[in-house]
Amino acid sequence: MDQPPAPFQYKLSAYQGRSRAGVFHTPHGELQTPVFAPVGTQASVKALTPRHLEEIGASLILANTYHLYLRPGDSLVAEMGGLHKFMQWPGPILTDSGGFQVFSLANQRKIDAEGVTFKSHIDGSTHRLTPEKSIAIQENLGADIIMAFDECTSPYDREYNRRAVDRTHAWAERCLAARRRSDQALFGIVQGGVFPELRRTSADYLVDLDFPGYAIGGLSVGETKEEMHAILEVVDQILPEDKPRYLMGVGTPEDLVNGVMRGVDIFDCVLPTRLARHHAAFTHSGRINLVNAIYAHDPAPIDAQCACYTCLHFSRAYLRHLIAAKEILSASLLSIHNLYTLLELARQIRQAIIENRFDTFAEDFFRTRTPDGSASQDDGAKPE
Amino acid sequence: MDQPPAPFQYKLSAYQGRSRAGVFHTPHGELQTPVFAPVGTQASVKALTPRHLEEIGASLILANTYHLYLRPGDSLVAEMGGLHKFMQWPGPILTDSGGFQVFSLANQRKIDAEGVTFKSHIDGSTHRLTPEKSIAIQENLGADIIMAFDECTSPYDREYNRRAVDRTHAWAERCLAARRRSDQALFGIVQGGVFPELRRTSADYLVDLDFPGYAIGGLSVGETKEEMHAILEVVDQILPEDKPRYLMGVGTPEDLVNGVMRGVDIFDCVLPTRLARHHAAFTHSGRINLVNAIYAHDPAPIDAQCACYTCLHFSRAYLRHLIAAKEILSASLLSIHNLYTLLELARQIRQAIIENRFDTFAEDFFRTRTPDGSASQDDGAKPE
Repeated sequence: MDQPPAPFQYKLSAYQGRSRAGVFHTPHGELQTPVFAPVGTQASVKALTPRHLEEIGASLILANTYHLYLRPGDSLVAEMGGLHKFMQWPGPILTDSGGFQVFSLANQRKIDAEGVTFKSHIDGSTHRLTPEKSIAIQENLGADIIMAFDECTSPYDREYNRRAVDRTHAWAERCLAARRRSDQALFGIVQGGVFPELRRTSADYLVDLDFPGYAIGGLSVGETKEEMHAILEVVDQILPEDKPRYLMGVGTPEDLVNGVMRGVDIFDCVLPTRLARHHAAFTHSGRINLVNAIYAHDPAPIDAQCACYTCLHFSRAYLRHLIAAKEILSASLLSIHNLYTLLELARQIRQAIIENRFDTFAEDFFRTRTPDGSASQDDGAKPE
Repeated sequence: MDQPPAPFQYKLSAYQGRSRAGVFHTPHGELQTPVFAPVGTQASVKALTPRHLEEIGASLILANTYHLYLRPGDSLVAEMGGLHKFMQWPGPILTDSGGFQVFSLANQRKIDAEGVTFKSHIDGSTHRLTPEKSIAIQENLGADIIMAFDECTSPYDREYNRRAVDRTHAWAERCLAARRRSDQALFGIVQGGVFPELRRTSADYLVDLDFPGYAIGGLSVGETKEEMHAILEVVDQILPEDKPRYLMGVGTPEDLVNGVMRGVDIFDCVLPTRLARHHAAFTHSGRINLVNAIYAHDPAPIDAQCACYTCLHFSRAYLRHLIAAKEILSASLLSIHNLYTLLELARQIRQAIIENRFDTFAEDFFRTRTPDGSASQDDGAKPE
């Protein structure tokens, strides 16, 4: 009998153009890529049980280092046996470095060469994150895939991005030096804003450090879709083909197809569950918001083409009633649907690549969508 | 082959003393009694999917006529195919008459011989419920078991209870005359506060009207447990043995055992799900509140004797984290546990009656409990 593959081996099953279908082996099972990771910021994918997540076919779950460091604390999670046991997710987990959240605190943080000092959004207490501290926290949390601590910038400030890329590289080396566990795959993060030459510099530098996988950070933060696609194409040329690529914080169904067309393997985003809590749902013809009165008497499911639990059982009229009556169940049912949409899309993309028909799949996909992937009406999404 | 039993046939499988184990046949399946009904006030058992309810073995679900009449409106529910289809509960459903909620509105309602005029808690608009209107609404909703429109009182006001019992009887006759559907079991409701002679009068009167089942209303509204038990014993002597008895709005695990000891078959209460949203959980040694800091590092489940999904998977430490982090999942997981506790208790009671050992079961049950069924600490429950 064959030995099971070593953790963090990435085997490509099929290519089509720049698009890849692969299998990434982790200590908690394999990830079939392309894959979309639901976000469980505080060790809970909002409004869903782990069983719900298994039923919709989730494989990788993301949790946020910044949030879990502050509450309940990474040492408590370690004491409880790590994140997998704590939140009862048996499959692979990914944690970010905490960098993105800390840099999002704006006036609440100060950056220096060593790290970042910041104030907690919970109680205003002062904390400090460094590359070494971020790795120590992530080792306590115990995810399968962990991230280097990077400096996140605004995408259009060239000088700031130049400095941030240098610092991100220095910090990446410190993260590599700081790690103690061998059962976690540490990914380097390519930065550089919308500037192709900075992105090239960053990708080249990190590839030399030989990470088991690479994240592409600093996208979906205000730049246009065209700019994001251009950067993905630049980075795709440099990153090694035998390592997974993770596009952080992206995205919509359209982003998945566009990302895979440009060599991305892993995606995560709060969008599906955040939209759900604001009553918005993906459909094959764009987003709809179930709070809208036009659905009050609508016996149809959210999306007649969808096979999720919500669409197999519940009418738009019932979902709108739950929303109007402020029933928690609306968030659960819409989260199931929105996550299923992205998970199922990733599965279909993978199958299309394996069957060498992803180009026609993508053509068909975009032909039935509005250009920005949303229906003409407001989808009601607000920041989390 | 035998014909399936006619709807609303109640077959007693076993007796022990006054305690009964039976099967009540409804158009949406049989109820094995004693049974506890989770409450889905607005056509949703708060924070749970119907699949959750199936997994914990729920059979009967209660929905509230007052709430559904106001929102989304009973005609909309009828248009969507009735409550079973609307909320996707395939099993038996029970609706109340709306009376209890309307009478709870205090200064917002006026009673006359014909019915009650009241203001909506949602928008202050004026509405009117009569026996005929309550039946019409409940026929639109389409539950398997529906309730006569009764006058609910304060339990200690003898004169008011005397008048209310008379009115309840007149209204019960009008409800019988008003009904058009034959696939719903209309239950009469015994009233009379804490006064045995009024309860006797009420039970006698309603038995003469020959309902397919009887509810006992106006209890668990401020009277002592001893008073409640005394009234149950009075009513038990009068109600026919071949019809199910439903104790409305009760209760706790202790109430179930005490009720069954006094001939009750059906129970419902918001308590398990309401406690869950206030972080409190039943255990075999009393209630605990998971917000308490003593659980922050506790790797144990809520109740080591419990086999629910929550107890099989999650630690008190994780549940406390979810509560501190204001994650919706805490309400779902605690609701699963609290409802399972009551559903499982009802199943154990039934089995004990069938095996002729309910008396020792009840003795064992009370020996391991505090007198009022709650642990010494505050359980943090607040009104819904």
